[in-house]
Amino acid sequence: MTFTANTKKMTHETKNDCALIALDWGTSSLRCYRFDARGDVAERRAHPWGIMNLPAVEHGSDPDAPFRAALRAACGDWMDAAPAAPLIAAGMVGSKQGWREAPYLTVPLAPDRIGRKLTQVDTGLGRSLWIVPGLLQVSTLPNVMRGEETQVIGALQQWRDDELLIGLPGTHSKWVRVTNGRIQHFDTFMTGEVYGALSAHTILGRTMQKPDAPDDAAFARGARVAQSTEGQAGVLSNIFSSRTLGLTGELEAAAQPDYLSGLLIGHEIAALKTMTAIHRQRIVLIGDPGLCRRYRLALELYGMGPVSEAAQATEAGLWMLAQHAGLVA
Amino acid sequence: MTFTANTKKMTHETKNDCALIALDWGTSSLRCYRFDARGDVAERRAHPWGIMNLPAVEHGSDPDAPFRAALRAACGDWMDAAPAAPLIAAGMVGSKQGWREAPYLTVPLAPDRIGRKLTQVDTGLGRSLWIVPGLLQVSTLPNVMRGEETQVIGALQQWRDDELLIGLPGTHSKWVRVTNGRIQHFDTFMTGEVYGALSAHTILGRTMQKPDAPDDAAFARGARVAQSTEGQAGVLSNIFSSRTLGLTGELEAAAQPDYLSGLLIGHEIAALKTMTAIHRQRIVLIGDPGLCRRYRLALELYGMGPVSEAAQATEAGLWMLAQHAGLVA
Repeated sequence: MTFTANTKKMTHETKNDCALIALDWGTSSLRCYRFDARGDVAERRAHPWGIMNLPAVEHGSDPDAPFRAALRAACGDWMDAAPAAPLIAAGMVGSKQGWREAPYLTVPLAPDRIGRKLTQVDTGLGRSLWIVPGLLQVSTLPNVMRGEETQVIGALQQWRDDELLIGLPGTHSKWVRVTNGRIQHFDTFMTGEVYGALSAHTILGRTMQKPDAPDDAAFARGARVAQSTEGQAGVLSNIFSSRTLGLTGELEAAAQPDYLSGLLIGHEIAALKTMTAIHRQRIVLIGDPGLCRRYRLALELYGMGPVSEAAQATEAGLWMLAQHAGLVA
Repeated sequence: MTFTANTKKMTHETKNDCALIALDWGTSSLRCYRFDARGDVAERRAHPWGIMNLPAVEHGSDPDAPFRAALRAACGDWMDAAPAAPLIAAGMVGSKQGWREAPYLTVPLAPDRIGRKLTQVDTGLGRSLWIVPGLLQVSTLPNVMRGEETQVIGALQQWRDDELLIGLPGTHSKWVRVTNGRIQHFDTFMTGEVYGALSAHTILGRTMQKPDAPDDAAFARGARVAQSTEGQAGVLSNIFSSRTLGLTGELEAAAQPDYLSGLLIGHEIAALKTMTAIHRQRIVLIGDPGLCRRYRLALELYGMGPVSEAAQATEAGLWMLAQHAGLVA
C-alpha cells in the first residue's frame, strides 16, 4: 500500500467518524459541529440561518419546513454519511419562536439535570433532534437564558472552584453564580443592546466618531464613573456626560464611544459587586475576545477576580449535554 | 359713542399694546409670546420652526437667513405693529447650532444675573434679538441646560422657599436645587430619551402594546423596583424584567410600556433621593401635565415632596429676564 493510498483511507475514515452532530441555533445564526468519537470537533460550519432568518421554502402550511430545510442544507451531508449519529441543538431554536418550545428548567439546579430534560423533535429527516432547555430563575424580577446554559456547562468542565462567577458578555450579558458545581443564580444586564440603542438612536450618537482603534483610556475613564461620587446619580444621568464632556472640550468625539461603553459596563460591574458577597472569587468570561478583554479591564478596576477566559465553551457544553442525555458514550 | 364702537376701539388698543415679543426657540419648535405692558401674555403662537427645522430659504451663503425668515414669518406682524417692542429669545437658538451662541453662565449663581448677560444679535429686521444664555455646571461630569433656566426663573416668581427642588421632566429631565433664591446645582437624567430608544429600538419594544389609557398600577409597580432589593442590580438589569415578566405571564403586553416608564422614572427618583440631603423640601414640577402627574406619583412613592406644579413658567421667566435686562420696565 502506498503512502498516498493510506492517507486517502485515513481521510475517508475520519469523515465517517461522526459520533454527534451538534447545533448552536440562535436568533441570527446556525453553527454546526461534527464531533468524533473522542468528543473532539472534527469539523465546524456557520450559516446565517438563525430562527429569525430561515431559508424561504415552499411548504407554507408546515411550520417545521423552514427549520428542516435549514438543517438539511447545513448538515445534510454529515447526516447522510453518519445515519446513526444523534442530533442535539441549543439556543433560541427551543424558544416559542423556535422549532419546538423546550420548557425552561428552574434554577438552582445541578447542571447534569439539563441533559436529562431534552425535548425530542421529529425532524422528518429520519432522526430526532434533541433540544436543550433554557433556564428560568423564578424571582420578583424573573430571569431567563437560552443557549448560555450550554456555554456554562462547557466552562464547568474546565473550572471546578467551589465558588465561581461565570460572565457571558454580549447583547444581554449573563452572570451565573455556581456554588459547589450547582447553578445557583443568574442575572441579566441589557448592556450591549442599551449601548447600541444609545449610540444609534439618541443625541449621544450625534457627537460620536468611531475611533480607529479601541481607546482603553477612554473606556477606563467611563468605567470608573460608577464607583465615583458622581456615580450615585446612576446610569440615566451619567450617560449625559458623554455629550457634556464633549461640549466642554474634555472628551474628543473619537473617545466618546469607548467612554460610553466603559460607563455602562462599569455600572454593570458595580451593581454585580454590590450583589456579590465574595469579591475575590474566580470569574470565568465566555464570549467575543474583544468584549471579554473590556470586561476584564473593568473587573480589574473594581478589584474583582481573578479573571479567566473560557474558549470553545459552546462545543464542550454540547458534547457534555449529549453525554448527560445518553446520546453519546 | 355706541357700545359697539367702544369695544372696537378697545380691541384696537389691545392689539397695539405690545411691550415685549418673547420667543421660546428650541430644537423642534418656535413658540412666540406677545406681552402687554402689564407683563401679561396678550397673544401666543406656536410654529414647527425649531432650529433643526427652519424654513428653506434661498440665501444659502448667509447663515442668518433661515433664522430671519422664521422670525419674520412667525412675528413679522407683531414687529410691524410695535416698532419699539424689544425681542428676547431663550432655548437652543443660543446654542452652537443656533442663530448665535450665547455663552453659558456657570452655577452657582443668582438668577437675576442671567438677564444681565444676554447676547445681542442684529436680526437684519431693524431691531436686535436678545438671546438668553444657558447654564453650565462645571464638575467632573459637567451639566448644561438651555431654555430650562428661563422656566426656573419663572417658577421662582411663585415659590420662594429657602430650599427648593425644581424638576423639569422631559426628554432630558433637569433637577435644579435652589437655596435662598440662588441656583446652586443641577443634574440631568436622559430618562425620556432612553425610554424612547428602549421602546422603539430594543427587544423590550417587541412584546409591548400601547395601552388605551395610562396604567398607573403598572407604572407604580415599575417605579417601586429601584427601592427594592432587586433594584440593586440597577437599571441595565432591571429593564429586562419588562420582557421576562411578560414571558412568565406576570405582566400583560399592554402594561409593559407604563411598567418600563415607571422603572426608569423610579430609578431617577431613587438616585435623586440618594443625592439630596433634605427629602421633605418643596418640589416644583414644570412640564407636560401628563408627565408631571407620573413624576408626582413616583415622588410620593419615594416619600419626597410636597410636590407643586408650575404653570406658564416659560412665559413668566421670559418676562422676568426682560425686566432684569432692562428691556421692559
